[in-house]
Amino acid sequence: MPIGSEIERLIQLLSKLPGLGPRSARRAALALLKKRDTLLEPLAEAMQDAARAIKSCGLCGNLDTTSPCAICADPRRDGHVLCVVEDVADLWALERAGVFRGRYHVLGGALSALDGVTPEKLNVQSLVERVSKDGSGHGVDEVILAMNATVEGQTTAHYLLDLLTGVKVTRLAHGVPVGGELDYLDEGTLSAAFKARRAL
Amino acid sequence: MPIGSEIERLIQLLSKLPGLGPRSARRAALALLKKRDTLLEPLAEAMQDAARAIKSCGLCGNLDTTSPCAICADPRRDGHVLCVVEDVADLWALERAGVFRGRYHVLGGALSALDGVTPEKLNVQSLVERVSKDGSGHGVDEVILAMNATVEGQTTAHYLLDLLTGVKVTRLAHGVPVGGELDYLDEGTLSAAFKARRAL
Repeated sequence: MPIGSEIERLIQLLSKLPGLGPRSARRAALALLKKRDTLLEPLAEAMQDAARAIKSCGLCGNLDTTSPCAICADPRRDGHVLCVVEDVADLWALERAGVFRGRYHVLGGALSALDGVTPEKLNVQSLVERVSKDGSGHGVDEVILAMNATVEGQTTAHYLLDLLTGVKVTRLAHGVPVGGELDYLDEGTLSAAFKARRAL
Repeated sequence: MPIGSEIERLIQLLSKLPGLGPRSARRAALALLKKRDTLLEPLAEAMQDAARAIKSCGLCGNLDTTSPCAICADPRRDGHVLCVVEDVADLWALERAGVFRGRYHVLGGALSALDGVTPEKLNVQSLVERVSKDGSGHGVDEVILAMNATVEGQTTAHYLLDLLTGVKVTRLAHGVPVGGELDYLDEGTLSAAFKARRAL
């Protein structure tokens, strides 16, 4: 066997990362072993630090070193508006865009009959509880459903819409992506953009 | 800031891996944090094990837990034939193919005026020394130059050919890849395959 079992194991674990197949995992392992001081050891440390420090926010499901997370704990964020996302990655994307100053709720996925994802497997119950805390001072006025524009995402949005009563529920607009060319867009997007056209 | 500095650092280091950009590094970091017990912690451990255990073979430049490496130490491998490769990844590729039962020599790269890779930066001197140990019992009879079929690889092969005197030097055959279609091949490969055609 030309490859020691330590390398073999490293490659096998690296290949489980999204975006890395067996071949790119081998390349990554070699790159790590070549840059031992600048990459391999710092990355191993960063991973152990992350494993130790990062937890799921008990309120919204975001990942942070504290629970409640920095967003939930930030008094400048508007607690009256709740943006529901499928995944922490979606929360990060919205934060990078910097358009939203309210709070989040991470479902942890989308309903999918094929993959056996039922409402019980998502953070749906805690969402309903957060929204229905209306009696207290910081009630939720609006819930923005920011699911992916996929079948699963839209199914989840419809399911949540039925569940969330007594509160304003909105969803993100569909339309032509900024910078996008009509020629390359699918009919569903074009049709949605047409239907939602606005007067200038 | 929505992302804790621990996550930020993890993403930043992951994005240095070949094959991972900033976006896929974020996806990888999230996947790691979601599969803490099955992926993040085992991978961190595997990396530290590798950093501790893996060293460069003092003879051939292969990566292994021992020096000399398993291939150099294996008495069943033929010490009379030496296969020179640019990189450990090439050695692994040849070992996967299982066609070669001799020993290897890893150069650690290819000559490149553009990147400033001179012969002094490659394991050329040690190759010459290994080959010229002719007086002793295990002299080298044949050196196979298995460089990449790139400009840099072929330059390196020519350079080594001039250096390696008094020993048979061969190179890998160029031709149509097995399973390849002529239609998709470049002219250089087709021309090489034509020139090296064999009687049936």
